[in-house]
Amino acid sequence: MARTQGSHSEITGPRVREAALQLFAKHGYAAVSMRRIASEVGVQAGALYNYTPDKQALLFSLLRGHMDDLLAARAELRDAGGALVRLERFVRFHIAFHLERPEAVFISYMELRNLEPENFAVIEGLRREYEGQLEAILRQGAAEGVFDVSDAKIAALAVIAMLTGVTTWYRSGGRLSVPEVQQIYWTMVRKAVAA
Amino acid sequence: MARTQGSHSEITGPRVREAALQLFAKHGYAAVSMRRIASEVGVQAGALYNYTPDKQALLFSLLRGHMDDLLAARAELRDAGGALVRLERFVRFHIAFHLERPEAVFISYMELRNLEPENFAVIEGLRREYEGQLEAILRQGAAEGVFDVSDAKIAALAVIAMLTGVTTWYRSGGRLSVPEVQQIYWTMVRKAVAA
Repeated sequence: MARTQGSHSEITGPRVREAALQLFAKHGYAAVSMRRIASEVGVQAGALYNYTPDKQALLFSLLRGHMDDLLAARAELRDAGGALVRLERFVRFHIAFHLERPEAVFISYMELRNLEPENFAVIEGLRREYEGQLEAILRQGAAEGVFDVSDAKIAALAVIAMLTGVTTWYRSGGRLSVPEVQQIYWTMVRKAVAA
Repeated sequence: MARTQGSHSEITGPRVREAALQLFAKHGYAAVSMRRIASEVGVQAGALYNYTPDKQALLFSLLRGHMDDLLAARAELRDAGGALVRLERFVRFHIAFHLERPEAVFISYMELRNLEPENFAVIEGLRREYEGQLEAILRQGAAEGVFDVSDAKIAALAVIAMLTGVTTWYRSGGRLSVPEVQQIYWTMVRKAVAA
């Protein structure tokens, strides 16, 4: 759904997505009309339907794109080795990836409620896939005897919530650099799951 | 702002607040009109203005009420003792308090962007007060030699994000009871900040 169609779309499609992302993040999905998105992009409202069948498809495309990007970026990481080094890589990656796209993080949480059930199921599946990757690292560490977590599933959710929370307070140019933030969080996560 | 006025308001005011909370949480602040809130409560749109000067005042009242309730509930806890016992009390309290009001937690995060600047400043101040209480516990523990956190302020934000995240996945009647969730999170927090 919401795939761009043809060569015009290849130029306008990303602008439509970017405008929708910014408007949804600022005002909320329900408050933003297709007409308003079109106006932001500088096209007629009718023209928008060349790029996306409807507003729901656009929201789904944004949330799905965010999860696809996340899973693709993680797949590009070298991910071999012991559980401790894999966990460190996960923590640093998660922080850097999410700090680069606060609006997408915000609507991915806030607008889940506005996804139609079949779209929600797809996003939920992708989230579980990502959470499952962290859970697998925690289980590996438990098997290696370096981690001690009583419930790997819940521990994965707890760690992800802690790390994603960085997007709510971090300001570029503030007191701490991204590597400093990564170091602080990595230290806490390492200890939280340590045997 | 948004204080109820007179005896009718003492009955209708809470219903207006509850209707606004549910509608804001479901559709977002920008998408919900005063007329819709009035219709949900079963009063004329004009009558709503006996209870609140406008929609912004209503939102501010909800977010402020949530923070006031949080600070008041925590003030009722016995809070003496060593840092370890104080931290445990904070963790268990935070989880229980937030699990009881997921809608308020959701709009308190999501609708911060829709507060007018002076209202935002008030809510920010109350949040900092709460975060400061946890930060003080972490500093006490560092002084006692039981905690080791390199940045107490960031550690407090990290712990709060992790704990509040419970509201995004916990389902009453699911696999885990509230005390089990509290125990899992307390164990992780204790280790995360341990010396």
